Amino acid sequence: MRRTVIIEIEEIEFKNPVLIEGLPGLGMVGRVAVKYLIRQLKAKKFAELYSPHFAYYVLIDREGIITLLKNEFYYWKSDHGDTDLILLTGDSQAQTIEGQYEVAETILEYAKKKNVKAIITVGGYRKDIVGTPQVFASATDPETLKKALEAGSLSSPPGSPIVGAAGLLIGLAKFKGINGICLLSETPGYMPDPRAAKSALMVIAKMLNLKLDLAGLDREIERIARIEEELRKMEERRAIEEEIMRKERERLSYIG
Amino acid sequence: MRRTVIIEIEEIEFKNPVLIEGLPGLGMVGRVAVKYLIRQLKAKKFAELYSPHFAYYVLIDREGIITLLKNEFYYWKSDHGDTDLILLTGDSQAQTIEGQYEVAETILEYAKKKNVKAIITVGGYRKDIVGTPQVFASATDPETLKKALEAGSLSSPPGSPIVGAAGLLIGLAKFKGINGICLLSETPGYMPDPRAAKSALMVIAKMLNLKLDLAGLDREIERIARIEEELRKMEERRAIEEEIMRKERERLSYIG
Amino acid sequence: MRRTVIIEIEEIEFKNPVLIEGLPGLGMVGRVAVKYLIRQLKAKKFAELYSPHFAYYVLIDREGIITLLKNEFYYWKSDHGDTDLILLTGDSQAQTIEGQYEVAETILEYAKKKNVKAIITVGGYRKDIVGTPQVFASATDPETLKKALEAGSLSSPPGSPIVGAAGLLIGLAKFKGINGICLLSETPGYMPDPRAAKSALMVIAKMLNLKLDLAGLDREIERIARIEEELRKMEERRAIEEEIMRKERERLSYIG
Amino acid sequence: MRRTVIIEIEEIEFKNPVLIEGLPGLGMVGRVAVKYLIRQLKAKKFAELYSPHFAYYVLIDREGIITLLKNEFYYWKSDHGDTDLILLTGDSQAQTIEGQYEVAETILEYAKKKNVKAIITVGGYRKDIVGTPQVFASATDPETLKKALEAGSLSSPPGSPIVGAAGLLIGLAKFKGINGICLLSETPGYMPDPRAAKSALMVIAKMLNLKLDLAGLDREIERIARIEEELRKMEERRAIEEEIMRKERERLSYIG
Repeated sequence: MRRTVIIEIEEIEFKNPVLIEGLPGLGMVGRVAVKYLIRQLKAKKFAELYSPHFAYYVLIDREGIITLLKNEFYYWKSDHGDTDLILLTGDSQAQTIEGQYEVAETILEYAKKKNVKAIITVGGYRKDIVGTPQVFASATDPETLKKALEAGSLSSPPGSPIVGAAGLLIGLAKFKGINGICLLSETPGYMPDPRAAKSALMVIAKMLNLKLDLAGLDREIERIARIEEELRKMEERRAIEEEIMRKERERLSYIG
Repeated sequence: MRRTVIIEIEEIEFKNPVLIEGLPGLGMVGRVAVKYLIRQLKAKKFAELYSPHFAYYVLIDREGIITLLKNEFYYWKSDHGDTDLILLTGDSQAQTIEGQYEVAETILEYAKKKNVKAIITVGGYRKDIVGTPQVFASATDPETLKKALEAGSLSSPPGSPIVGAAGLLIGLAKFKGINGICLLSETPGYMPDPRAAKSALMVIAKMLNLKLDLAGLDREIERIARIEEELRKMEERRAIEEEIMRKERERLSYIG
Repeated sequence: MRRTVIIEIEEIEFKNPVLIEGLPGLGMVGRVAVKYLIRQLKAKKFAELYSPHFAYYVLIDREGIITLLKNEFYYWKSDHGDTDLILLTGDSQAQTIEGQYEVAETILEYAKKKNVKAIITVGGYRKDIVGTPQVFASATDPETLKKALEAGSLSSPPGSPIVGAAGLLIGLAKFKGINGICLLSETPGYMPDPRAAKSALMVIAKMLNLKLDLAGLDREIERIARIEEELRKMEERRAIEEEIMRKERERLSYIG
Repeated sequence: MRRTVIIEIEEIEFKNPVLIEGLPGLGMVGRVAVKYLIRQLKAKKFAELYSPHFAYYVLIDREGIITLLKNEFYYWKSDHGDTDLILLTGDSQAQTIEGQYEVAETILEYAKKKNVKAIITVGGYRKDIVGTPQVFASATDPETLKKALEAGSLSSPPGSPIVGAAGLLIGLAKFKGINGICLLSETPGYMPDPRAAKSALMVIAKMLNLKLDLAGLDREIERIARIEEELRKMEERRAIEEEIMRKERERLSYIG
């Protein structure tokens, strides 16, 4: 494992599948979205990617088994013979510049081999939002972009950079002759954000004509909202206590 | 794209062209100068350079299309059969030491292949200037340096380092048998600096016997001067408000 | 030495040995444990590992001789023909992500060549402990894990990352068909921790059915306890003196 | 220049020369010492080393010519047919771990080719010294170390690390069958330190039976002492002025 490698668990044949990527990043938007897709569609894992450019720690799973950081490829085949999906998520992105390029190239070469016709990447767009997060789209070409805009996403503000795999995969896809869309969903980015993931999934569902039950995400949104509320209250209490202590200290220093 | 590559869009034949480099750097002097040259001369793009050593983000253009960070080669052919120009600018320099050397070598090998006889690099020299920025020249050899000095540039203070592509390209050019000049124009370096770019372009125009209309840069200089004036006023207001708040806080802490 | 290399001092034949790794890390738990094993078992060095990914300094030993940073392999053969041991310790871990992978791969390839059937790695788990440190186990597979748990270690809390060689060696071992256990012993991690090492060694001794005299470690534990007590007193004195000086400064500033 | 390379200017034959290295480092001790040796012995340059692992800037010399960062090999042949010297100094050390190993290996391979029988590296040992700086020696082997100790150097405190080329060259020399000594001279390390360099040169002169006029270094020592005195006075003045301003500010804040 001195280079990035993909280990195939099952050899699946695809006819022009769409690859949807959601790796860790701002607000974990992509990861939350793609993991939800995997659960909802009961997608199956068929390949794993390992890289010496991931962080140098390993994880312990619930059974006490050690696993290297990895990215995972899942697949889902439509009943009606429409578009197959390849779903890509994982524990880590590459930690160095050169690593980011190597991992992205490895993914794209594999996608090419699997006849992938289009790539959708999902990420977060930092914003302290009120209300429903908006989704910004950018793409490899105007025609592909149009599809994303028709599905409810907005034009990305020009000039803004897209950091990491979500951008690099689309930037490099062009050179492989693969179309691609990057969807960035507004998120404060402090913690895993199911609201932002939901907005992105609604655009994806419409674009791909997928029937998707998002009720599970709504429950997750409520859970996160409760945690945020708890944190807000703790912060308030902390601020009050600090103010009291500060005044106390001042009084003492006038005496002492 | 696991190594730095140059992708040729159009194969152009040159007879001993001069390559002028202006990549992002202090005060964006080189980039502003070369971009202005490209616009004024209506130069045409003929090649792009991509590198896994650039930063790992991508950019979104005005049409919402994602583009990898890249360097770009433009060309301009003189009507009178004199010197052809190759103009090199771009979004990024390499982000690591080894990357800087790899990108510079790739550019020089391509320059060699295109029969480039001389390279001029343009950069900034940090100084809080009053009046017209001066231009400091250094070169691969005394003869080449003399031409730059005769065109109105000054001798560089010895011992001063030149960081990044502007210096490395000239330092490495010697080993390829290509002459080179580095022009550093004085700039405070806080924002893109058309004044510094203008000074550099005046030296270049004289050296290469180019007729160059610099009125467009003058308009840019005025625009930047207005922004600087605005920023200065904002800063003044901010300082006053801060002073007021500080005194207010002190008063309160004596009471509270 | 432009790549990681292992230099064999003596060619030893093993029949399914167990490799125990203890490299520098949190609380030096692994290193203290494996160094104690080497001393107690009078194990002999048979190989050294050097790597350009270790830190770029060298060490001076007691005779004034300069030595590169290195990892060292020792062996011990049981009298009764049971399990042979390979003991791995050293001065340094790799300093970069890619280096960590290269060094771990080099160790595993060598282990494979030496017919290693199982790997035990030893590290620290940060905790401000009172009483005997507990040992947490994780493994390549449930069966191997069971052996560690039966020997007195506890299940690792899921989701927690294991940084560096202790984790990476086990994570990568799976791909070589070698079983492995990672034992993390609780330690505050401020200084070399023989208490944590002792806990880990007790689990190892039970698992491997080793007779091990730990009295030497107990003396080390008492020595460290005395140092900690000294440091605690110094810290108390320092805090008192600082408080006195602070008050003095305040008084003076009201006068001055 | 994508790898470290040595460019030979003149092909010199040596019979078992001694290589003395003095690259930039703490207090510039090695560089000052070796540069002085080059000047005093009128040594001649015969090779240059370039590396993509040096910092990515270039230097401008007194004639305005741009030069890449480099290391330089000089030679001196004794009149009486005794030991020839190869003197190695330069602008930079490698900036990354892997670069340090690559550059050191390249130097050692070249040394081997030139029949170098021993290497002496010179560096600084941080200490706020009063009086003559002491020189600490360490070596590849006890016999070589003995020679350095007999020439007036002291045993190095064991366990202390030697950072960079001075240590790595000796650590790696062993693997090439070359003997080596590292001399570290006490220095505060704030600025180029001719006093520390002189102490090191006295040991080297005695070891190699070199006649060396150190009067030039004494003049340099006086010059640096004057600068240090000036800096000390400036610092005193600054401290006094700061104290005055501080009191003034306090008075004003009681009023304002």
